Amino acid sequence: MSALVGVIMGSKSDWDTMKLACDVLEELEIPYEKKVVSAHRTPDLMFEYAETAAARGLKVIIAGAGGAAHLPGMVAAKTILPVIGVPVKSSALSGMDSLLSIVQMPGGIPVATVAIGNAGGTNAGLLAAQLLGAFDPELQQRVQARRDRISREVMESSNTL
Amino acid sequence: MSALVGVIMGSKSDWDTMKLACDVLEELEIPYEKKVVSAHRTPDLMFEYAETAAARGLKVIIAGAGGAAHLPGMVAAKTILPVIGVPVKSSALSGMDSLLSIVQMPGGIPVATVAIGNAGGTNAGLLAAQLLGAFDPELQQRVQARRDRISREVMESSNTL
Amino acid sequence: MSALVGVIMGSKSDWDTMKLACDVLEELEIPYEKKVVSAHRTPDLMFEYAETAAARGLKVIIAGAGGAAHLPGMVAAKTILPVIGVPVKSSALSGMDSLLSIVQMPGGIPVATVAIGNAGGTNAGLLAAQLLGAFDPELQQRVQARRDRISREVMESSNTL
Amino acid sequence: MSALVGVIMGSKSDWDTMKLACDVLEELEIPYEKKVVSAHRTPDLMFEYAETAAARGLKVIIAGAGGAAHLPGMVAAKTILPVIGVPVKSSALSGMDSLLSIVQMPGGIPVATVAIGNAGGTNAGLLAAQLLGAFDPELQQRVQARRDRISREVMESSNTL
Amino acid sequence: MSALVGVIMGSKSDWDTMKLACDVLEELEIPYEKKVVSAHRTPDLMFEYAETAAARGLKVIIAGAGGAAHLPGMVAAKTILPVIGVPVKSSALSGMDSLLSIVQMPGGIPVATVAIGNAGGTNAGLLAAQLLGAFDPELQQRVQARRDRISREVMESSNTL
Amino acid sequence: MSALVGVIMGSKSDWDTMKLACDVLEELEIPYEKKVVSAHRTPDLMFEYAETAAARGLKVIIAGAGGAAHLPGMVAAKTILPVIGVPVKSSALSGMDSLLSIVQMPGGIPVATVAIGNAGGTNAGLLAAQLLGAFDPELQQRVQARRDRISREVMESSNTL
Amino acid sequence: MSALVGVIMGSKSDWDTMKLACDVLEELEIPYEKKVVSAHRTPDLMFEYAETAAARGLKVIIAGAGGAAHLPGMVAAKTILPVIGVPVKSSALSGMDSLLSIVQMPGGIPVATVAIGNAGGTNAGLLAAQLLGAFDPELQQRVQARRDRISREVMESSNTL
Amino acid sequence: MSALVGVIMGSKSDWDTMKLACDVLEELEIPYEKKVVSAHRTPDLMFEYAETAAARGLKVIIAGAGGAAHLPGMVAAKTILPVIGVPVKSSALSGMDSLLSIVQMPGGIPVATVAIGNAGGTNAGLLAAQLLGAFDPELQQRVQARRDRISREVMESSNTL
Repeated sequence: MSALVGVIMGSKSDWDTMKLACDVLEELEIPYEKKVVSAHRTPDLMFEYAETAAARGLKVIIAGAGGAAHLPGMVAAKTILPVIGVPVKSSALSGMDSLLSIVQMPGGIPVATVAIGNAGGTNAGLLAAQLLGAFDPELQQRVQARRDRISREVMESSNTL
Repeated sequence: MSALVGVIMGSKSDWDTMKLACDVLEELEIPYEKKVVSAHRTPDLMFEYAETAAARGLKVIIAGAGGAAHLPGMVAAKTILPVIGVPVKSSALSGMDSLLSIVQMPGGIPVATVAIGNAGGTNAGLLAAQLLGAFDPELQQRVQARRDRISREVMESSNTL
Repeated sequence: MSALVGVIMGSKSDWDTMKLACDVLEELEIPYEKKVVSAHRTPDLMFEYAETAAARGLKVIIAGAGGAAHLPGMVAAKTILPVIGVPVKSSALSGMDSLLSIVQMPGGIPVATVAIGNAGGTNAGLLAAQLLGAFDPELQQRVQARRDRISREVMESSNTL
Repeated sequence: MSALVGVIMGSKSDWDTMKLACDVLEELEIPYEKKVVSAHRTPDLMFEYAETAAARGLKVIIAGAGGAAHLPGMVAAKTILPVIGVPVKSSALSGMDSLLSIVQMPGGIPVATVAIGNAGGTNAGLLAAQLLGAFDPELQQRVQARRDRISREVMESSNTL
Repeated sequence: MSALVGVIMGSKSDWDTMKLACDVLEELEIPYEKKVVSAHRTPDLMFEYAETAAARGLKVIIAGAGGAAHLPGMVAAKTILPVIGVPVKSSALSGMDSLLSIVQMPGGIPVATVAIGNAGGTNAGLLAAQLLGAFDPELQQRVQARRDRISREVMESSNTL
Repeated sequence: MSALVGVIMGSKSDWDTMKLACDVLEELEIPYEKKVVSAHRTPDLMFEYAETAAARGLKVIIAGAGGAAHLPGMVAAKTILPVIGVPVKSSALSGMDSLLSIVQMPGGIPVATVAIGNAGGTNAGLLAAQLLGAFDPELQQRVQARRDRISREVMESSNTL
Repeated sequence: MSALVGVIMGSKSDWDTMKLACDVLEELEIPYEKKVVSAHRTPDLMFEYAETAAARGLKVIIAGAGGAAHLPGMVAAKTILPVIGVPVKSSALSGMDSLLSIVQMPGGIPVATVAIGNAGGTNAGLLAAQLLGAFDPELQQRVQARRDRISREVMESSNTL
Repeated sequence: MSALVGVIMGSKSDWDTMKLACDVLEELEIPYEKKVVSAHRTPDLMFEYAETAAARGLKVIIAGAGGAAHLPGMVAAKTILPVIGVPVKSSALSGMDSLLSIVQMPGGIPVATVAIGNAGGTNAGLLAAQLLGAFDPELQQRVQARRDRISREVMESSNTL
């Protein structure tokens, strides 16, 4: 089955965080593709990627970047698909720069921003699943089952304090 | 037609920002409902709202709140629908508290966060439209037409510098 | 004797900080209970915990959480008991997100917030003791004795500079 | 009836915020006293106030201050009573300095910190009421009734969007 | 004479700040062009502008934007000319978001960032002049003369304290 | 010769930073005393220390503390001597809380604040030396000689790049 | 009598804040001089001012500046006199930039930093008075008398709540 | 060939970052010189360096510093050449102090600021190359070739995810 979610990142160094999104997509059996696409070092590739995303069958794009993180917003400017932005933790400012660069988009072009770093990586995968799940009851059930499992794990963890 | 998007806010004072989301939904002919639902002052109403949202036919929830803004994250915890969070500008910290309270969700429960304040209000409406549009080509075209119109307006504004 | 203080935390990973609160409660001979209760992953458990807390005989709740830390505020919204919030140090923003998510509550539902991290864990236990001590002279004396002991230790530490 | 709550502030300019705490105490029929006590300009008065507070029958102290806000923490150091700190909004840093000066107390001496500015003023009064209410069922009922009333007002405000 | 400096901005609302750059360029007799070019709303125009800038004879580009300010960095990614970035003061975060979005560029694509707001507008014009002046002694003299004049004005202002 | 400078700190854990101030005082042959004095854990000792400082012959007090760092400001409130405040680096907020708690003193009671952490420790010693040196030409010469030596070291370090 | 304190500022726009320092010096009968000296626009004047300050009989320099506030630190680098730095409130970042530019001096050259804005202006004057007062008992008494008066005013202000 | 770029830094400890600028200059065959010049510890050397830079044939100066980083701005005040400022990552505030001290220059004297830390070091070298390249087509081609190579490396890195 062709990819429904495109997972892109500005640098291979973002992979540790973005892999968590891919892990969720695999766990939930959502077909996806992954690629390094840099807003600043491969701008033409970025535009081409964004412009052809909808036609290739993607329904959502997950884009992660750090520092002056322009990838999510620029991809969002070039596609009508919803774009999820993951602020990767940066070395000097711990991802506060990444977060503000991604979330503070001007009126007109939204980016669905998640948390800085690993929690954001995981949640980007889950948010994509929930978006798709709103139109795919079976997927929605798999997401719910994952939640239920984690809920049980949280409750059981109390016994080990 | 029954509402596809639920627009909720923690206080009536958030309406100036959240009205911008509603304006976009109306402009794009997306049926929606709106309500004041406070995480802290009406917690049971909030849970009931979130629990029944999917069954009532909603596909997306937009939740705006300021300060220790718990509404988006708590609604997200109680529904499998995607939740868009709008950090309303707060009086002391200009919405930085709202932003961090909304975006920094732990792995497991994502909130699709948009910009602080009015840009976020408008973009929450657009993001909802893009989510729905990924499965509704006509809506997607209306969103694209809106973008094209704004693009032209930006270009024309150059003549008035 | 039944528990007077409920110590809850959003994740088992908060235990290192929250154990310090429990240590103080044990040292001061205050009966308490402890539990992992996640606002986002076990929301119903959280509501049930908060709703039944007063009837179970608790007088104070200590709630610790990190990141978008909604547990203290949401528990406070569902109980009339005083709630002490402990901002657990988070990985990207060092607990500044936890602090703002806990302390910036809207008018109507207060959370008694203490310091980020370990100092906050210890002080949550002491604050609970002082609240109870205002109505329990013997407990108040034990708290005072602990202060006096620490005061002496500080003074003696001067000799080792 | 003698005062149960002492409301103090570092400067008369803090009164706008601290009056909100007093308003809540009056509404809930809790006897209180109020005073300007400056940590830096009247340090001896501050120590005397704190040292005699418990003996005068106070059960809780509410202390508000802005900037390098030392009043709540220093009073807490000199009394065994629980101290609620209100970070008053400051002119340059909007109360972020007040907040950190109050909340980041070292292990040993807690301050129960509430939100910056007016929400904090109101919530300081409510927190004091909840502390006292844990040992005074009638007061607890008045606090609950206030919550219920505000809950209804929030729900009704939805009709006016 | 054809333009040596291109002054672009993400929105007409940035004009108040960017006009200050143009004022300096006019004062120093440096030919320039100005245009509204939005990274997010006119991304293709932006790429075209950047790609053709060097061939059109521009030597420097000044780009101003606010919030998630991607214009300077994206233009820099698409031209080999030096790009000066002006962080326009934003409504919620006073330009801190603009600054971090512009200055925190990854290794490989620099943006010469100046101060937030009006000082940055003026200094962008001066920086462009100094870059050109390093290869144009007459222009360099005009820049120096402007400095000397301002230096005298500062010294004279002492008399009016 | 009796001490001219009193070096105090809120906790023995501040010693690493405050030792640097003492090192400078020793190097410059300025008699000093050192002591752990905690604003919160030994408030009476702090007041006594400050009240008797001038009479004991001290001319300057250096006070270091971290977190909600009240020691410098409270000592300043209780002595007419100049007080130098050293913001010790704190674990969660890296000393930003210490800095704001020390420097943002209200009009009326100044604290001469130096840099966060080790640079501040060294500079507190030097600032004390410069204050005393303004009335002690020989000391002033020793401070100048130290500067000259460091200046040479900086210049020589260029050769090892 | 020749000036003991030099009050300088980077721009005439800093005068509102720096006048408060001068007011205190006049009130306490301390001879002073005042001047606009810009680190960036009149660097040679700044160096000359600093180099000749001690020989002219100054004992302390008060330097105020905003934004990238280099004046206090650079003057400190060029004189052996103690330098008090006043972070003037800046338009975009409310003086946080001014504060960090002044206080975060590297080990070797201290600046005695006071609060941002007007409180800092007043306190710079008082700090200068306290430095001089450590060697001038009559001046020290005038400073103490001023403190006593303000202490009484604070206490009286309680009656007007 | 005589140096076109001067690379200076406030301390030898900045060398790890500033070496990256030198590496780029060597790779692009741009003659440069390097030196430790401290604004605070060798102010006269700094002024002399800046004053003679243009006459020595330099076309651009790269200045790196950390904390209260005055070197770039002060050098800019003393030369008509363009100055690139590199905010070196500082120990307590991770370079946020360095960034604000460098970028927030007042209108009149610009500093071309790049990113905090290592990315800034590399980009300072590249920015210098682009400034020079605007008047040196062969150099411009070498910069472009470097970009093309990195672009290919980014694209190839996708294969190793």
